[in-house]
This record gives sequence, structure tokens and C-alpha cells, in this order.
Amino acid sequence: MSETNGTTEPASLFPASTRVYVEGSRPDIRVPMREIALNPTRLPDGSLELNAPVRVYDTSGPWGDPAFHREVTKGLPALRAEWIRERADVEEIEGRAVNPLDDGYLSEKHRSKAEQEGARNRIEYFQRDGRPILRAKPGVKSVSQLHYARQGIITPEMEYIAIRENMRNAEYRAQNADKIPSNDLRHQHPGQSWGAAIPAEITPEFVRDEVARGRAIIPSNINHPELEPMIIGRNFLVKINTNIGNSAVASSIEEEVEKMRWSVKWGGDTLMDLSTGKNIHQTREWILRNCPVPVGTVPIYQALEKVNGKAEELTWDIYRDTLIEQAEQGVDYFTIHAGVLLRYIPLTARRMTGIVSRGGSILAKWCLAHHKENFLYTHWDEICEICAAYDVAFSIGDGLRPGSIADANDAAQFGELKVQGELTERAWEHGVQVMNEGPGHVPMHMIQENMEKQLEWCHEAPFYTLGPLTTDIAPGYDHITSGIGAAMIGWYGTAMLCYVTPKEHLGLPDRNDVREGVITYKIAAHAADLAKGHPAAQYRDNALSKARFEFRWEDQFNLALDPEKARSFHDETLPQEGAKTAHFCSMCGPNFCSMKITQDVRDYAAKKGLTEEAALEEGMKEKSKEFTESGAKVYS
Amino acid sequence: MSETNGTTEPASLFPASTRVYVEGSRPDIRVPMREIALNPTRLPDGSLELNAPVRVYDTSGPWGDPAFHREVTKGLPALRAEWIRERADVEEIEGRAVNPLDDGYLSEKHRSKAEQEGARNRIEYFQRDGRPILRAKPGVKSVSQLHYARQGIITPEMEYIAIRENMRNAEYRAQNADKIPSNDLRHQHPGQSWGAAIPAEITPEFVRDEVARGRAIIPSNINHPELEPMIIGRNFLVKINTNIGNSAVASSIEEEVEKMRWSVKWGGDTLMDLSTGKNIHQTREWILRNCPVPVGTVPIYQALEKVNGKAEELTWDIYRDTLIEQAEQGVDYFTIHAGVLLRYIPLTARRMTGIVSRGGSILAKWCLAHHKENFLYTHWDEICEICAAYDVAFSIGDGLRPGSIADANDAAQFGELKVQGELTERAWEHGVQVMNEGPGHVPMHMIQENMEKQLEWCHEAPFYTLGPLTTDIAPGYDHITSGIGAAMIGWYGTAMLCYVTPKEHLGLPDRNDVREGVITYKIAAHAADLAKGHPAAQYRDNALSKARFEFRWEDQFNLALDPEKARSFHDETLPQEGAKTAHFCSMCGPNFCSMKITQDVRDYAAKKGLTEEAALEEGMKEKSKEFTESGAKVYS
Repeated sequence: MSETNGTTEPASLFPASTRVYVEGSRPDIRVPMREIALNPTRLPDGSLELNAPVRVYDTSGPWGDPAFHREVTKGLPALRAEWIRERADVEEIEGRAVNPLDDGYLSEKHRSKAEQEGARNRIEYFQRDGRPILRAKPGVKSVSQLHYARQGIITPEMEYIAIRENMRNAEYRAQNADKIPSNDLRHQHPGQSWGAAIPAEITPEFVRDEVARGRAIIPSNINHPELEPMIIGRNFLVKINTNIGNSAVASSIEEEVEKMRWSVKWGGDTLMDLSTGKNIHQTREWILRNCPVPVGTVPIYQALEKVNGKAEELTWDIYRDTLIEQAEQGVDYFTIHAGVLLRYIPLTARRMTGIVSRGGSILAKWCLAHHKENFLYTHWDEICEICAAYDVAFSIGDGLRPGSIADANDAAQFGELKVQGELTERAWEHGVQVMNEGPGHVPMHMIQENMEKQLEWCHEAPFYTLGPLTTDIAPGYDHITSGIGAAMIGWYGTAMLCYVTPKEHLGLPDRNDVREGVITYKIAAHAADLAKGHPAAQYRDNALSKARFEFRWEDQFNLALDPEKARSFHDETLPQEGAKTAHFCSMCGPNFCSMKITQDVRDYAAKKGLTEEAALEEGMKEKSKEFTESGAKVYS
Repeated sequence: MSETNGTTEPASLFPASTRVYVEGSRPDIRVPMREIALNPTRLPDGSLELNAPVRVYDTSGPWGDPAFHREVTKGLPALRAEWIRERADVEEIEGRAVNPLDDGYLSEKHRSKAEQEGARNRIEYFQRDGRPILRAKPGVKSVSQLHYARQGIITPEMEYIAIRENMRNAEYRAQNADKIPSNDLRHQHPGQSWGAAIPAEITPEFVRDEVARGRAIIPSNINHPELEPMIIGRNFLVKINTNIGNSAVASSIEEEVEKMRWSVKWGGDTLMDLSTGKNIHQTREWILRNCPVPVGTVPIYQALEKVNGKAEELTWDIYRDTLIEQAEQGVDYFTIHAGVLLRYIPLTARRMTGIVSRGGSILAKWCLAHHKENFLYTHWDEICEICAAYDVAFSIGDGLRPGSIADANDAAQFGELKVQGELTERAWEHGVQVMNEGPGHVPMHMIQENMEKQLEWCHEAPFYTLGPLTTDIAPGYDHITSGIGAAMIGWYGTAMLCYVTPKEHLGLPDRNDVREGVITYKIAAHAADLAKGHPAAQYRDNALSKARFEFRWEDQFNLALDPEKARSFHDETLPQEGAKTAHFCSMCGPNFCSMKITQDVRDYAAKKGLTEEAALEEGMKEKSKEFTESGAKVYS
């Protein structure tokens, strides 16, 4: 894995952007943001008016900091190590010995043979020196953020998150106060007040309270001190997850690590490593040590590899060992399909598309093979105990999610959702943080019911949905079919949206697909933030629209979610550099532009000394005269 | 224009598709559909089960018929000529003489000079021989579909539409009756019954009744007999519009005609020609004579060209003459910004993005220059009289639509919407068909209010919206920001969605952008049809999902909105032909596929003679035993 031994190329940084840090109550709370510099506005009299820079949420971690060493073999700094140690409730352990089976080999000999057969099987181990393996001290029930929150403790993670969620755009927001609706209900349609509980200012205490209630989680394994804390809950910014994985027919570790950096560059808030096949353990190690966002996995995937793909040979021991393996590595959340109960499986036989979740399928197969209840369900308490000792959060899987419009909201799906609620309560008893996974394929009119039932049955634990896809008929465009559903369910209260790429149902996403998927989901999440009235949402729309109206093309590009694409699309029509300062755009040409005409209207009104009130009065007088003359019914 | 003199290349046809015609009560009512052949399902015992072919709505007109001559110079057959003549209320007229100014030239000499300067200025005239210019006979007030509908007349156009809307998928639907929800309210969430008025079967009488009430329109100028009738109304399939236009800095007639064929190939239901600059008249002529869908324009754009781009020099006479010019050519609907009243203009001065509609800007400028009320408003009755004589429908413009999230639903926008309602009623008095244009940029939580107010104030006339865009921060992806809003407002009751391409705000769309825009909007429209419970919606989702589940890859591609892209995405990962018949897919690899596992579950259950009920019972017994043993709280 030569690329990771030296310095890799820096992920290209965004234009006109500077990495800034906002410090909290202690010097080691330094929250990264990307600050976008804007050009001044040229006023009609030729003078310039400065525009305050705009700060945006930044998920790229040290990779977005030009000062970072960029050496993959060194990994990221252990940002949270001291915070974790200070709490004095963990101990260093030797940890479980990594064995060849963790990477899918029966023995060292088997591994050597595979390595001889192909260069891509040669995996160097990440040198973890100086990064101890931690676990809760004996007698400590939980070391989770939920556990601290319940005791009234505001952790550094919580304070970090409060700063991050507010994005400190005070200057910009003050300048544009009259254009940014406060997040009260004044713009909300009656009955659509899903954002009503979001305060105007996110405080550390609010973060703590939401976590204590189970309404939000902070995925943050004590063995992943490299991560920059973030929160998933419906009274915070809507988050998005991206998936990567070394599928059996393509990909390599190098590609996976680079995909991770690519994903967080564009705005992925968490990352799921869905690897199957060989070298799962080492792939994950490289990712974790270099990943600034929480990492989630589906442990049953790795467990299945350990039994050579035969679901019926899965055992609790193998699964339990895999949980510990991954918890010690630092995985921040586990998808566990413990709600796929034996009694629900036959309900899927008459479905249009049966069981489409991989985890759900594996467990269904196991249950039927043994005529026994799902072993994840029967061992739930033990699973909780393991996760509480590392602060691994649960993402309770929806193994029976609908794979087509025809199967949406059916008995199998909702049966499992009810069990998810039961599992949530039991996990909370163990001090484990929980979110719940949701569908899938759901037509628009049936989306809200998913959210309502989840809130009720799962006691307001955060909802984490795949899409949902609002139609089945557009393979190749499922980022869009699902982006529609994702925006809606995000508005209704879903806390995190699992992205879908254009390759969904068809193949493995490449870099471009990942970028398309991430941007589509950033759009969905932001549209939901706007609709919920999150205080840190609309300022960016306003800054961009003001730039657009004032023909500050460069600022419009730089404020966009994807500056590079915005610029290249513009340049395809008007490539000359001069066109980017021109007061017209390619859609209408130099003599005919509505924005130019509007400016003329303003100028004209100003020149004539025509105030808005005078113009209105003038207009009314005119109308009044005409009305009298014509006798026609003019105003309704 | 050499390409149009001979036979142009056929627009590539869709795979596995046949053009079929469904005949109505008379032999000249022949409704085109595209029939997609499916492969049989291979059952577990190796036998084959046939799958009925699927018929889909086809907007491509004769261009989608392999038997068509494809000669652009000959134009399309005049499908409706006889229907129009039979009504005996129109007469042939000589028509207004086309003059150089119609194409933006001051004189023939000016035109010659321009042609000498550049080859792209040489425009051949379409030879209209045998296509007379028609107008209502003297004394006939209206020749509109609304006029006939009110008298209880079911026109051939209405019958054609009834057949088209149902799509006659009787065989497929019968096969899958248990999987296709009927469009009653059983799947609809309380309070979300926007599709409640759609009947299970669209009859000609239902079409007539909806048109008579003004709830739907059939844009169909008597001078555009080439068009295949379609309907725009909220109790029918949601339609989409695409835009083309020869902007001043790019494009040519050849490109515009080809863009039209490209747009209808992918599913554009109507087409707006937004040309500016030179050769507007002749461009439009070529498009109209070859266009199987209704064509809309914004006549003020051409009028502005006739006064050399100076808004303040516009006069009623020039505008009126332009209306007649276009009505005689066959334009099916006019966007008219008659609601931009003088008193609302000052309300836009403090907006984030002022007036962004081109038509709105022109009229605002005119109003302020003259200190007079909008002349389109003051001449509304005369405009109605002209349009009634040709059955040109109105698309009453929203010149003050919001151009940014900050400006959504403001006083200027809603002020104009109220006037749109007044204009609608007055147009109906003249027997003119009407729809209303809507925004623009609107965050999700403020979309529904737009629909509700439009229904109330505009008396249920069809709503026709641009997007709306649900955030401003993603230039380069505004097909997606707006596709979200379009799907939602379509569900709420908007009858037609004006597409947005990825180049919106940035540049002129190329072929790929048009395709992306059209497909995105077909997704939005179809998602809305599903959510409203239109009887001709879900069968296609079901057919595709069944194919997907059965690993009929070819059928999955062929049933997709964009078969070509679906296939190419699949082939990027697994290019071998064999992979398309393999019972696994690239996402999971050969040994690990959830759909394969589900099939195993079914097979297993079948082999064991395990019926659903038995499995359920078995599961319960198992659980029951365990429950007793463990004493744990298992079921909530």
C-alpha cells in the first residue's frame, strides 16, 4: 500500500476559503470552520460596500487544514484523548489479539498464499503505537455521552458541538437580520411545525439535555479519539451519512481511504464502512485512524465472512467476538438488525421485493435455518453491555425495510419498527446511545407516517433513513428519487439521511457518483434545515442570493455547495474571465437581463426620488383615475 | 438550414419498445403509446412465466414511430385538421403578412445584409402549403375546448386524452391487482388527500367536466393541428414543460428543432419557445410544424425585439400584432404578465433579489417609465378576445415570483397572485382556457401555502410552477433543489411543472442538461402521481421492481425512465453480457446478495412446506418457549 506510506496529495481545497478555528471554554476545544471570503458590492455610485465573510460547517477535519501533515501512516491527531482520560472512567487494556480470520484468512499461511497471488492482497498494518486500547473500568456501567448527560455533565464534546452547530456567523447575520427569518413559527404553516423545538441559539446545555433525553446522540467511541464531535438529533442540523466498502468484485484499501477523504471533503457527516470480502479489519483500521467523522459498520457483514458466507453457520460467539474487535478498533456506531424477528419473516414472502436489506436477509436465513429467534435479539442485553463499555452507539437496523413502492409501510416493516422501539428502551437502560434506521422505498404520501410512528414507538430516538426513494422507475437517478424523500423526511424530523448515489441498484459508485450523492444529500439536509428554521441555515442562501443578484459571479460560485461545478457550468457558455464580472449572464445575453432591468427599476425610482410609498401612492392615483374613467371592475 | 431539407437522423428509439396505437370511437382517434416487451420470469422449477408488456405514455409523437417519414421540411401530419373543420365554427383567412421585423430585421435589406455577414443568419422559410390559417368565424365568440366543454360537447381531443391518461394497461394491471393500490384513500394519510378527486377510470366525460369547470385545460390552437392532445389539470397525470430558446449569445434554429425532438423523446409534455434575438418567427415556425406537443411562448419577448430591446418603447399595438402573429402560427399558450401591477413594483425594491422574471422586469420597467398601469392588464379583455378566436390558452405569468428563499411568499408575490385570480375569471367569461404560473424559490415549509392560495384565489384553475427551488445554495444542481419542490407541489395539486436544468442560473443547457432536467422532472411528476393515487402510475413501479427482484436486468433497464443510462451504469461495473442474466449484482458480489438470500428464504420455506401461517405459528411457539424460560420482557 505504497501511497499510504508517504505523503498523499492534499484533497483540493475550496476556493476563497480559509480554515478557521473557534475556540471554546478551554484551549483544546477548537472547532474548525471554513470561512469563505466575499468580494465587495459595487454600489450604483461606484463606491464599494464590504461583504462579511461566511463561515460554513466543515466536515473535512485536518484534511481541510493546509497546515496538516497529510501523512496517512501517521493518522490524525487524537483530539479527544485528553477529554476521555480526564473522565477517569476508562482503563488501557491489551485488547483482543487480531487474527488472520479478521481479514478473512483461515491462517497466516492462507494469507501469505493470497498475497503471493495478487499484489492487491498485500496489506500493510497501520502502526497504532501510542494509541492505546481503552475500555470502561471494571464496575463502570457506561462511558457514553448519554451516561454523562444524564448526570448533568456537559462534556467537552457537547460544548464543541454547540459551537459547531451555531457556526458563529454573528457578523453576517447581524448585517442581514431583516432577511433571515428567526426560527420561530412565523413562517411555518399551521400543522407543519416540526422544527418548533429548535432554539434560536444552540447552547452546550441544550446539547446535553437533548442527549440525556435520548433525542440526540454523539457517536464517539473512546477508541476513536481522532473524531471531531458531531451530533445527530432532530433539533440540530440534519446530517448525512455516506457509505464505502471494498465489495468482492472491485476496490482496494487505497481507494477506500481516499473515498473517505473525498466524502468528508464534500460534507459527509458520518461514514459507514460496509466492506465485505478480504482485509476488512485492516481496511477499517486505515480508515478509522484517518477519519475525522464517526464511522459506522454492520458487524454481521464481517461475521459472515468469518463463516465463509454461510449465514446458517453464524454463532453468537463469532458475532460477539466481532463486536469486541470492532469496538476496540474504534467503530462509533453499529447497525444491528435485532428487530428481524422470526415471526415477521413469513410476512415478506408475498412482497413485491421480499427482503432487500443485506443484514435482514442474513438473519432471515439464519432464523429459518435454525427455526430459532434472531440471536441478536436474544443476546440484546449482552450486546448493550459491550457497547456501553466503549460508547459505541446503536443504529438499530431495519432489516425488513421496503425495497419497492408496493411494499412500503407494510406489516413486516412496521412490525420490526415496534421491536426497534423496545430495543431502544432496553439499550437506554444500559446507557447506550441509540438511533433507529428507516426505509427504503416509500411514496410521498406515506412518508410522514414513518416519522410519526418512529417518534411514537421509538420514544423520540433519532431516526436515520435511507432516502426514502419516492418512485422505483428511475434507476440511474436514484440520488434524485431518494433526495426528494430525504428532504421531506428530514423536514418531518429525521436526524440523519443515508445518501444514495446515482449507481444505486446498478453498480459501485465511483468518485463522481459519491460527489453527486453527497451534494444531493447536502441539498436535502439543508432544505430540511431551512424548513425547520434552524438558526444556522438561511444565512448561506442569503449570502449566495445577494451575490447572484449583484452579479458577483465568483462569490456565487464560492458560496455554492460545489464551487467547481458551478464555475465550470458557467464557463461552458461564457469562458472569458471578463464574463465573470459582467453585469449580465449567458441565459439572457447582454441586452436583456431581468436582474439588470430590476437594477434599472431601482435606479430609476431613486433618480426620480420615488420612494416606495410615493410609487405606491402614484400607482394608486393612476389606477384610481383609470378606474373612474373605464367604470370597469379593476380590483377584486 | 441544410439539415432540415432532407431526412434527419431518427431520434434513437427506446430498447425493447414498440409503437402501438389505441383506437377510440372513430378510426382517426389513434392514441400512441410505447409498449415495452418483458422477458419471462424463470420460476424455481425452471419453468417460465410470461410477463405482460407494459405500455407507457409517449410524448414523442410521429418522431417515435419508425414508420414516420422524418422529413422536417414536410412537418408532422395535421392530426386534428378534420376535427377542427367538423366543428364548423372556423374559417380560413389570409392571415397577417409576415414581415422582416417578425424576425428582428428592420427591412428585407437589413435581413440580406445580416445573411451576408453570417451563414447562421440564413434561414429558409418553412413551406406551409396546405396548412391554412384558421380563425373563429365572425360572430363566434370562442372556439376553445372550454367553450365546447361547457356546452356538454365531448370533442375528439377529449376522448383522445381519456384514452391517453388511462394508458390501457388492463392486462398488466389485472395480473398485479393485489400489488397496485386502487386510488381510493386507503393509502392516504389523513389530511393528505390531494388526489382524492381522481377517479379509478378517466372517462371522456370526466375530461369534459374538468375542462368545463376550468380545473383543466387542453392547450390546442386551431392553427397547430399537428399536436397530439394532452391535458393539464390536477386530477390528471402531472405534466412537465421544457424550455428552449435561441439566446443572443448562442444556439441556432437547427439546434432548437433538434432540442424540441430531444425534449419530447425523453417525455416533455409541452414546450416553451423562449427565443430572443433574430429569426424568432422562423424558428418558431419550424418548431410548430414539427412539434407533437403544445407550444407556449412569452409574446412580450418578441415584442421587445421589435422595439430593439427598449422596454419603454413597447406599445399595445406592437404587442397586439405579435399576439395575432403567434396565434396564426399556432402557438398553443401564451404567458402573459398582466398581473404585474404598478402598485406592486415598489414592494420589490427591498427584496433580496428584486424582480427575477424577465417578463416581470420588462413590464416593471415599462410601468415606471410611463407612470402608467401595465398595458397587458388594461387591455386584458381585448387579449381575451384574440385568444378565444384561436383557442390559445393563457398561462398567466408570475412576474413577481421570488428569486430567492428570502423573498418567498411575500406581499409582492401574493399581491400578483390575487390579480391572477381576477384575470382568470375574466378570461373564463371570454371562453379562454387558463392556467396560472407560480414560483420560483420557496423553502419546503412555505410551498403548501402557495398551492392553497392559488386554488382559492384562482378558483381551481390549473397551477403551473417553476420548481420551486427549495434552497439557493446549490447552483449546478438546481434540477435537484427544484425537483424536490416540484414533486411536493405536484402532490399538493400543481398540474404542470416547468423543468429546471443543472445549468439554471449559470448558463445555457446543452443536450445532456436537457436530458437531466427532463428526467428529474419526470421523476417529480411521477412521484406526485403515485402520491395522488393516479390509476395509471404505480403499475410501472411494480413492473420494474418485479424485474429487479427477479434479476431480469434487461427488463429493469428497459422499464427505466432512462434505459441507456441505467444500462451504462451497470456495465461500468460488470460489462460482460453474462452479468446481465446473473442472479447477483455488483453491489454485493456473487456470494452475498440480499435478493438472492431472500429467494433462498422463499425456496427454503417452500421446501419445508412452511406456509406463512405455519412459519408464523412456529415462530410464536419458539418465542413463547423462550419467553417462559427467560422470564424476560420480550414483547411490548
